[in-house]
Amino acid sequence: MPNLNLDALLNPAAIAVVGASPSNSNGVGSRALHQLRRFAGRPIFMVHPRANPDDDPMSVVSVDALPESIDLLIVAVPAAHVVDVIRAGATKGIPAALIFTSGFAEGGAEGAAAQQELREISAQTGMLINGPNTIGFLNLHERLLATFYLPADCELPTPGPVAFVSQSGALATYIDDLARDRGINAGWLVTTGNESVVRLTDVLEYLVERPEVRVLAGTSEGLTDVDAFVRVAAKAAELGKPFVFVKAGSSPAGMTAVMSHTASISGADEVFDAVCQQYGVLRAASLEEALDWVAMLQPGRSAGSGRVALLSGSGGAGVLMADAADAAGLEVLPTPEQDRKVIDELIPSFGSSANPIDMTAQAIASGVESYQRILDAIFASDAFDSVVIASGLRGAQSIDVAHAIAASYASTTKTLAVGWYSLNAESREVLVRAGIPTYPDMSRAVNAVAALRRFEDERSSVTPEPATRVDKARRVRALAILSEADVSTALTEEQSKSLLSLYEIPVVQERGVASVDDAVAMAEQMASYPVVVKVLSAELPHKSDVGGVKVGLADADAVRRAGEEILTAVAQHRPDAVIDGLLVQQMAPPGVELVFGAHRDPVFGPTVTVGLGGVLVEVIAEVALRKAPLTIEQARAAITGLSGGRLVSHARGVDRNQVDELAGVLVRVGDLMVEVDQISEIDINPVIVSAAGPLVADALIVRGTE
Amino acid sequence: MPNLNLDALLNPAAIAVVGASPSNSNGVGSRALHQLRRFAGRPIFMVHPRANPDDDPMSVVSVDALPESIDLLIVAVPAAHVVDVIRAGATKGIPAALIFTSGFAEGGAEGAAAQQELREISAQTGMLINGPNTIGFLNLHERLLATFYLPADCELPTPGPVAFVSQSGALATYIDDLARDRGINAGWLVTTGNESVVRLTDVLEYLVERPEVRVLAGTSEGLTDVDAFVRVAAKAAELGKPFVFVKAGSSPAGMTAVMSHTASISGADEVFDAVCQQYGVLRAASLEEALDWVAMLQPGRSAGSGRVALLSGSGGAGVLMADAADAAGLEVLPTPEQDRKVIDELIPSFGSSANPIDMTAQAIASGVESYQRILDAIFASDAFDSVVIASGLRGAQSIDVAHAIAASYASTTKTLAVGWYSLNAESREVLVRAGIPTYPDMSRAVNAVAALRRFEDERSSVTPEPATRVDKARRVRALAILSEADVSTALTEEQSKSLLSLYEIPVVQERGVASVDDAVAMAEQMASYPVVVKVLSAELPHKSDVGGVKVGLADADAVRRAGEEILTAVAQHRPDAVIDGLLVQQMAPPGVELVFGAHRDPVFGPTVTVGLGGVLVEVIAEVALRKAPLTIEQARAAITGLSGGRLVSHARGVDRNQVDELAGVLVRVGDLMVEVDQISEIDINPVIVSAAGPLVADALIVRGTE
Repeated sequence: MPNLNLDALLNPAAIAVVGASPSNSNGVGSRALHQLRRFAGRPIFMVHPRANPDDDPMSVVSVDALPESIDLLIVAVPAAHVVDVIRAGATKGIPAALIFTSGFAEGGAEGAAAQQELREISAQTGMLINGPNTIGFLNLHERLLATFYLPADCELPTPGPVAFVSQSGALATYIDDLARDRGINAGWLVTTGNESVVRLTDVLEYLVERPEVRVLAGTSEGLTDVDAFVRVAAKAAELGKPFVFVKAGSSPAGMTAVMSHTASISGADEVFDAVCQQYGVLRAASLEEALDWVAMLQPGRSAGSGRVALLSGSGGAGVLMADAADAAGLEVLPTPEQDRKVIDELIPSFGSSANPIDMTAQAIASGVESYQRILDAIFASDAFDSVVIASGLRGAQSIDVAHAIAASYASTTKTLAVGWYSLNAESREVLVRAGIPTYPDMSRAVNAVAALRRFEDERSSVTPEPATRVDKARRVRALAILSEADVSTALTEEQSKSLLSLYEIPVVQERGVASVDDAVAMAEQMASYPVVVKVLSAELPHKSDVGGVKVGLADADAVRRAGEEILTAVAQHRPDAVIDGLLVQQMAPPGVELVFGAHRDPVFGPTVTVGLGGVLVEVIAEVALRKAPLTIEQARAAITGLSGGRLVSHARGVDRNQVDELAGVLVRVGDLMVEVDQISEIDINPVIVSAAGPLVADALIVRGTE
Repeated sequence: MPNLNLDALLNPAAIAVVGASPSNSNGVGSRALHQLRRFAGRPIFMVHPRANPDDDPMSVVSVDALPESIDLLIVAVPAAHVVDVIRAGATKGIPAALIFTSGFAEGGAEGAAAQQELREISAQTGMLINGPNTIGFLNLHERLLATFYLPADCELPTPGPVAFVSQSGALATYIDDLARDRGINAGWLVTTGNESVVRLTDVLEYLVERPEVRVLAGTSEGLTDVDAFVRVAAKAAELGKPFVFVKAGSSPAGMTAVMSHTASISGADEVFDAVCQQYGVLRAASLEEALDWVAMLQPGRSAGSGRVALLSGSGGAGVLMADAADAAGLEVLPTPEQDRKVIDELIPSFGSSANPIDMTAQAIASGVESYQRILDAIFASDAFDSVVIASGLRGAQSIDVAHAIAASYASTTKTLAVGWYSLNAESREVLVRAGIPTYPDMSRAVNAVAALRRFEDERSSVTPEPATRVDKARRVRALAILSEADVSTALTEEQSKSLLSLYEIPVVQERGVASVDDAVAMAEQMASYPVVVKVLSAELPHKSDVGGVKVGLADADAVRRAGEEILTAVAQHRPDAVIDGLLVQQMAPPGVELVFGAHRDPVFGPTVTVGLGGVLVEVIAEVALRKAPLTIEQARAAITGLSGGRLVSHARGVDRNQVDELAGVLVRVGDLMVEVDQISEIDINPVIVSAAGPLVADALIVRGTE
């Protein structure tokens, strides 16, 4: 699916506002009209029945009376009139509309019906509709303030590289306020409200490729088009643009709230998390954390290989920062000798030039020149990729220190974060103007550098979205196997394994036979001793208990003996049971047991899982989940990430070759789910991994109910 | 060990400052003198060689010249003179000293030697010494500002129920500043600096029992007396006083920094974490988080059973709060019908009275009366124990809303937290005066309520520190077994199992015998078929490979046959090997495998661990660690907490009776470590848990090197 071209909506050449009143300058329409006319530098019309061209030459009495050049119709009329206005605009051929009015799907059945009408008008005419129940957008690079929430006399905010997208208008104003406090320059802020037509993901797809956007950040309560989200994430990774996301409704309580609030379903949170991992999206737990990260990503500098220098005037602060750095995966390496010499000359003997670097309060008090020289020396060191400063200064001295930090930062291309809890407005202004990310807590400053590092690290391993590889011939054969299954939704073990074999997933060979002679012949044919022989009977679920299982049979004689003993024992224990024959089964060599699975999420579509197998491991219940289809690299990352990497690093785990083979299995299980959407669930337990490679011992495939 | 009585140090009747200069009012001594004289209302002397009683009637020229009534000597002279001043004070019988001067153990070998001299003076005279290198303390209930970091003209801070204790002076000023911003009223702020004599834990032990202290919070880089820390934590839990702690140096990088910075060792962070879990200490990851929690704990209200109402003017904010509440273990239950009716009359139809409650921006704009009535209705509901409000208001309206919230809060005893990112100074003042905890982020407000809830929850399950139960007779027998072991530090399997048996830990019976006949006799004597027979030979580490192991032997005949076959097979495979005989071993019934361990931490002393066993489980490597000795309740909590509770809840896990038996084993492994401190390490792998109870199959005990 191609992106929607949102130019008419988000960068319109001419705009008309319906619902701005000549007599009430405080309505949302009037406020938006005011802001647009202050800055936009393009025709902004007003539509109002009492419009008087003598008072306002850019006003008309109806949508019909507008000139042909209008790209965007902004609608702020009462809910009862919205559909008529939109219809008039669509009829006139206006390509886009923005509807501020609320009281649609979020307000009950009647509103939902009206919203459906809007959707239909769009479907018939191609009109792009943002809203209803949206607070509009800012496109600051084009000086467009298509919103009503800013103060009437606000200055035009400085446009920057960050694009924020939010479904909720309230959260958007929260983000905008907070971002401004933090020195984050948003070039874009787009809200999507009820998403009757244009969705959050449409906006993200439009923005991710725009050259002026270098950092993407969004929040949403329900993602309705996860494929589009995957496209955005993959594109952002490809272009090297960090993408920060806060998904509201990640918890059961949150999801319930979303459903009652927006009437939209959200898919399983674990699947969303998997998508973020697969495509390098930085998922933040709160808006505060998201803004902490965006502030760090905005400068576009690098955290290199994560070697961080920690500078403060107190040993205790240094230790706390070192703890935070360690926990977040940054490296706190010792300052090299030659750099220590430079620093030691600038600090008292009871300070420390090791890392963390304790310049002491005394060195700070002794003058700002030495502060800057110390910081210059740290930036100049080859041993560090970034610097985090903790400061608790107040008063007159702090502005001098802020200037020193700003000057040092201007002379380097390395990354800097400042944790300065007592930062006053004047000093903050100095740091913000210099483009330096500041934090009210030193641990948060460290964590933000770690987020940048994580982005850079993951970016290198994010693979593009896999091309959808539907193999039609294979699909036909799969459907044939499915159709053999009787009315029950679960396939038999044999059918399940046939399907897996079709997708080149190695399964234990096995075959039901009618007699002991046939069992011997089948075992010879398999040519893969040792084998297992089991009694085949629907009436004997616990075969071992009745002497119905013999394992480790090394040759034809052993198979014959086992078959005879089984039939005798079963006849003795359960003379009543109907015996269907014998099952001859290849015996998997001993090895590490894993479990694979697949599931179809109602919103996010097919997913696959891989986890450790075995009895106690079920208790531990650790699995990695990924969205299908997936690339071999994504599959490998899922497997090597199990148990904190120990599945691969541990002597009793699996080796690199086995990881590659297992990754192939995971990819192909995903392909099966993608190609055959009649399957709702796959449970493969266990897959036994030995030197001979992975082998599926048991598998169950479930068809969806149609 | 009894607490140190720190009255003379922290609540002295009369004080003398040495090192305040009549001519330099900016020195640290002079600044402290100034603050003490402003507020303390008790005699504060100055000691200075050029003191002139005409200028200052409370000044003397030497320590000798001081009156007998002095309790506390505050020392701010240069490092070279400190020891002499302290000696003079001690000689005079002054019971306590506070040393601001730095340049001791933190500044090299010479300073360390001087610090050792201070310690010796204290040991000889009983003088309590706080410091050197400390910034002193505030005891605001007694109007004592024994410090130099506050501005000369500061007002006397309002004393409150919170006591802060910090080793680092810099972190203490950070805490003090931040606490004041957050409306936290510290009654105490004590720093301990280099801890030559008085340690952080001494101060905590002194403060925890004081009636005016209701919340305890501390931070330290290295805990040198973990037993005292355990006593404080257990006492705090007993008295219902929350205890929040930030341990700097929790990571390898942080620990390295601590060592270079304070030259003190810190114990393994996992052990500290275990102590916090055992004794209900709220361990925060950063100072910001600690202060978030303290602000919530200060009012002394309850979070009840954790049912939280979430109120905002936006659906999106409600969802984000619900996510945070869910993740933090709070309950977001629906508003009951009768309460919804009250709320519905006060909000527009597109709002929501469900929980999260979206009152809408419109309801907020419509007037502050309805705001207060909505909040009153929520507080009045039986369905909620606490309320979290998210607000993004700015401007004139916010102060009215703050007053409405304050009025509603005054009329209830329930808990409230306000997340208000755009809170202005005036509105903040209203909320702070009302005693309401405020947060710059709504998720942080929710998390703080969860911390209160966690404290209340854990308080109920914290057991007092176990009485040390040294059984002297048992200890003598244990030492006898240890002494049998030869020079190697590892005991044999048999010796290890004997020791465990002595502590009533059930071990697999086994005995080495010389011949097949003896093996049969031994098996008959054990009377616990099936048994295992193994070849006994130090030269055959891989017994199975040479046919040296036979399992599942059901009777005497089987044992005889097995013994003969083993000897034949071994003679065939390894004719060269010296055979010591045969091992007859009880065969544990199949069951869940666990691993137990014990270790002696250089700082924290004996610890025990319990985790899941089995091959793949080693890969997963999850263990619970606890400090020994431990109570049966603490042991039970450690076991039931494994794998997120699934070891107990899962069908393939263990049942309640088995948990009790396993908890007993854990307690007794701890007792063994406590009683016999010659043991450095115990490794019990596996313990097999079947219907017959736990049974140790293999064990290894290691003696410490002396």
